[in-house]
Amino acid sequence: MPSKKNQQRGPIQAGDIHSFGNMPIPKLTPELLSLVRTGDVFSLEQILEPGIPFWPGHPPVLIAPYMRHGDLPDLAPATVGNEIVNLPIHGGTHIDALAHIGKIKNGKPELYGGISAESAMDNTGFTAHGAENFPPVILKGTLLDIAAAKNLDVLPDSYGITGEDIRACEKKQNVTVEKNTAVLIRTGFSRYWKVDNDRFSNKGAGLNIDGAHYLAERNIALVGADTEAVEQWPFDPQGPPLPVHTFLLVENGITHVESLYLDKLAAAKTYEFLFIALPLRIRGATGSHIHPIAIT
Amino acid sequence: MPSKKNQQRGPIQAGDIHSFGNMPIPKLTPELLSLVRTGDVFSLEQILEPGIPFWPGHPPVLIAPYMRHGDLPDLAPATVGNEIVNLPIHGGTHIDALAHIGKIKNGKPELYGGISAESAMDNTGFTAHGAENFPPVILKGTLLDIAAAKNLDVLPDSYGITGEDIRACEKKQNVTVEKNTAVLIRTGFSRYWKVDNDRFSNKGAGLNIDGAHYLAERNIALVGADTEAVEQWPFDPQGPPLPVHTFLLVENGITHVESLYLDKLAAAKTYEFLFIALPLRIRGATGSHIHPIAIT
Amino acid sequence: MPSKKNQQRGPIQAGDIHSFGNMPIPKLTPELLSLVRTGDVFSLEQILEPGIPFWPGHPPVLIAPYMRHGDLPDLAPATVGNEIVNLPIHGGTHIDALAHIGKIKNGKPELYGGISAESAMDNTGFTAHGAENFPPVILKGTLLDIAAAKNLDVLPDSYGITGEDIRACEKKQNVTVEKNTAVLIRTGFSRYWKVDNDRFSNKGAGLNIDGAHYLAERNIALVGADTEAVEQWPFDPQGPPLPVHTFLLVENGITHVESLYLDKLAAAKTYEFLFIALPLRIRGATGSHIHPIAIT
Amino acid sequence: MPSKKNQQRGPIQAGDIHSFGNMPIPKLTPELLSLVRTGDVFSLEQILEPGIPFWPGHPPVLIAPYMRHGDLPDLAPATVGNEIVNLPIHGGTHIDALAHIGKIKNGKPELYGGISAESAMDNTGFTAHGAENFPPVILKGTLLDIAAAKNLDVLPDSYGITGEDIRACEKKQNVTVEKNTAVLIRTGFSRYWKVDNDRFSNKGAGLNIDGAHYLAERNIALVGADTEAVEQWPFDPQGPPLPVHTFLLVENGITHVESLYLDKLAAAKTYEFLFIALPLRIRGATGSHIHPIAIT
Repeated sequence: MPSKKNQQRGPIQAGDIHSFGNMPIPKLTPELLSLVRTGDVFSLEQILEPGIPFWPGHPPVLIAPYMRHGDLPDLAPATVGNEIVNLPIHGGTHIDALAHIGKIKNGKPELYGGISAESAMDNTGFTAHGAENFPPVILKGTLLDIAAAKNLDVLPDSYGITGEDIRACEKKQNVTVEKNTAVLIRTGFSRYWKVDNDRFSNKGAGLNIDGAHYLAERNIALVGADTEAVEQWPFDPQGPPLPVHTFLLVENGITHVESLYLDKLAAAKTYEFLFIALPLRIRGATGSHIHPIAIT
Repeated sequence: MPSKKNQQRGPIQAGDIHSFGNMPIPKLTPELLSLVRTGDVFSLEQILEPGIPFWPGHPPVLIAPYMRHGDLPDLAPATVGNEIVNLPIHGGTHIDALAHIGKIKNGKPELYGGISAESAMDNTGFTAHGAENFPPVILKGTLLDIAAAKNLDVLPDSYGITGEDIRACEKKQNVTVEKNTAVLIRTGFSRYWKVDNDRFSNKGAGLNIDGAHYLAERNIALVGADTEAVEQWPFDPQGPPLPVHTFLLVENGITHVESLYLDKLAAAKTYEFLFIALPLRIRGATGSHIHPIAIT
Repeated sequence: MPSKKNQQRGPIQAGDIHSFGNMPIPKLTPELLSLVRTGDVFSLEQILEPGIPFWPGHPPVLIAPYMRHGDLPDLAPATVGNEIVNLPIHGGTHIDALAHIGKIKNGKPELYGGISAESAMDNTGFTAHGAENFPPVILKGTLLDIAAAKNLDVLPDSYGITGEDIRACEKKQNVTVEKNTAVLIRTGFSRYWKVDNDRFSNKGAGLNIDGAHYLAERNIALVGADTEAVEQWPFDPQGPPLPVHTFLLVENGITHVESLYLDKLAAAKTYEFLFIALPLRIRGATGSHIHPIAIT
Repeated sequence: MPSKKNQQRGPIQAGDIHSFGNMPIPKLTPELLSLVRTGDVFSLEQILEPGIPFWPGHPPVLIAPYMRHGDLPDLAPATVGNEIVNLPIHGGTHIDALAHIGKIKNGKPELYGGISAESAMDNTGFTAHGAENFPPVILKGTLLDIAAAKNLDVLPDSYGITGEDIRACEKKQNVTVEKNTAVLIRTGFSRYWKVDNDRFSNKGAGLNIDGAHYLAERNIALVGADTEAVEQWPFDPQGPPLPVHTFLLVENGITHVESLYLDKLAAAKTYEFLFIALPLRIRGATGSHIHPIAIT
């Protein structure tokens, strides 16, 4: 699959809407509307709080009261509370910006579209492929319950999901992975969330490079999972590191949504739905927390 | 308008969907779907970045690279970037949780539903009315372009929007403020965003108590504006502080969406639309940044 | 021992020097100078870095580059690096301000000198007994190597050091604990620093209330230890929580220096020395990291 | 003056004492002791608090309560307070580590001793010349009250202090700048601290390159000032940026102490004293806040 050049268009402004990587310009088309039958809404976000699993290479989460009700007596009878929030963008339910992952070519890290990572980053963040470029994400969503398709509650630790696994799941669920869609993969690993964080972070089932190729050939818009990496973790030690991340994000502009909560949606056995996620447009950041939903 | 008791239901879990304050349980009903004509999507979020206006009583914003592409040579050829993000929840486009505002009654601050603020807060945040309770927000949206209704580009500094102003705008736009809707008020103050932050933060046009009563009588779900306070700022020095915040949030469970970007939507002159916002479920926090959209 | 009223003197200014709790006004007297024989300097600070032990009720440590050499090409040929530093004041080698600990009296928490904790704290920190009140600490220091006095490399987990233990150590070392001095207690627990953080944080040998009484009767200026709490941890479950902290800090104004590194000083078997620590004057904070030294 | 190669010695451990740049190994020698006459102690630190001046390229200061007395009812009758402290290392009274400044040579930034800045920095900080290398600073201090020597209360904005200015001040004060000493320059700019931060940060009097050469020829250990840069600010636009920083730190290993409070010391007209500063050993950081003292 050829990588596509992402044309830079100058600083993103409030209200701008455009494509990002392999994601189309958002539009709520009749085809998408036809996915809505009951109008029921499923929240696919894990609660964001201290104690959630995340990779130690990321900064720590902190949610702490700053001003408490009663601190400003001059405002009486009104009172105000607020807090300090330090978020590790890549812990909790989030979407990766394409600035998150690069690949060394000719000795230098490159981002999607052949952009030099070094020239795109300084202490203010990234000037290309940063989170301020995120459009609203409004797509057909397809849930692939790989665990259920294998008659399992949860996939084995570090299981590598192949193209054949996806094909078998499509057949069992009677769905087809299509172009411009959000593919959500359920492994069952949510059961380890905050219960066995080491397992959640370090032994996640996920796509191997074969599974990633399968999805890229279908030209999907993005891929999500109920795991921290979407990718099989650890990746195959015989091959290069992070093969799925580099293949999907850097080569194909297909980004990841990680640490989704999919169990209630899977229990409803509704495999096709309207998927909406609204990433925060944080200037120069490598991703954003999101609260994605499925409308069935 | 009587305040309603909000029944607490134990810790919110991933996937839980319920009402919050005056917001209904989310459902994409046929009535809401009928608002979608072209399917065009408007982004109503200001870009989140250093230099945006926010009230000094809130913690500072910080978006700073942490790991840069090339920092982990063992991962070659893959490279990874991430960052530290410290967000002032109440700066930038955001929605207030009901834990944000209280009112002193019998000498003690109370939140919506008569909950004691003191007993609901500790160093981990709020145990009631915190952001983890946010449902997806899926509502009929109504834009009230108060500035345009007065044939102005921007309302005067500190202008107090009355019920009569709203009524006149409804008439001019041929719309009616209805129950269970998101009402978005345009003052034109976005022109001062990052250009004249002092004016944006300290002299915002906004609802006065009369305008707030008008909206509460219509039993709306939430009210937003293209200003930092939604409320006229400063409020009337003759009356109690923060009269609109306390009346709407504490007495009526009608929350605020602040610092919206409404100019492109207003330019389209489409005053009724499908409004979607997906607040992050941050445990115990007093609000969340959002990237709200209007689908017309 | 009667508690002493600490007279508040208005906001501390740069350069102000005064007493703090039981610490005298600093002066390098001939008596103190007589402690200096070789002039050798011992650093008593543990390196401050991620991965150090600290109690989970404190915010996380973060030391992360912000600007890197090369980020500001306009400055060439000069280059600049800096960082973001988030410090948990009570992790790492530090001194407690008297604002750190209170005791409930008549239903309300009180600080040293009968000051109401509630009226002294708001979102800007403490208006009484905060770290900006710290004078330079210049005292006679006495090392009590309790472990060595018992012919041990390290005291048993959670061992409670009694007055009799201190008396026996004084005798063995041929020293006497005196008024206005800094008493540094060595337990040997530094061996667990970053090696067994759980043990360091949760099973520290330390003063029990009997040992604390012994030191307070000698009217010392402050007490330090090579442990996280100075106090036996956990404290005796039959008695009230934090008995040593409340007795020393709240009742006697005798503050704590925690997580000292004493092994090299102890190896030199020099038990009396000039002790210097220079706490940062952080407005309203409950303590400060320090780099204390012993000059022998 | 030739640059000296700083030999790296592996990770610094707690208790290690060694030299740093041009600073000698600390020892309280008889020569230093002879500087102590009255034993009086002067605090040379500005209070560290929100609202202090610092350069916008540095992260913001935050001192905010985290746990408040009463938050942990299980500890009653004991109560505990602590806070979140985010420190901009280069705002407030601080000492620069040699990792702070580099100079591009052969196209790459180099630190003191010819160390490659790029190879010495990653997301954990600096592996060379970081703050964990700081020894206790125990030196003869010499105050040069340049303002008073010119019969001024405060030097003119952006005044460049020359070697001749220093020579004249030495003569007037009857002192000599000597090898291995801490030279503290008083400009009078403390009067702008928190009163006119823009002036303090952006128009500071300070050393020009001629003055820096004069001090380096004397082979001093470090230079401090009551300004944010020590160096004349802005520097001469005809020459290279940051000429004094690069000459002193990178070429000579002579570090800076910035934003000192010198007014009370200057009022005492005691120009030679024992200078002590005890920098925190923060792994990989580019400096440390300090509370320096003069003992006269």
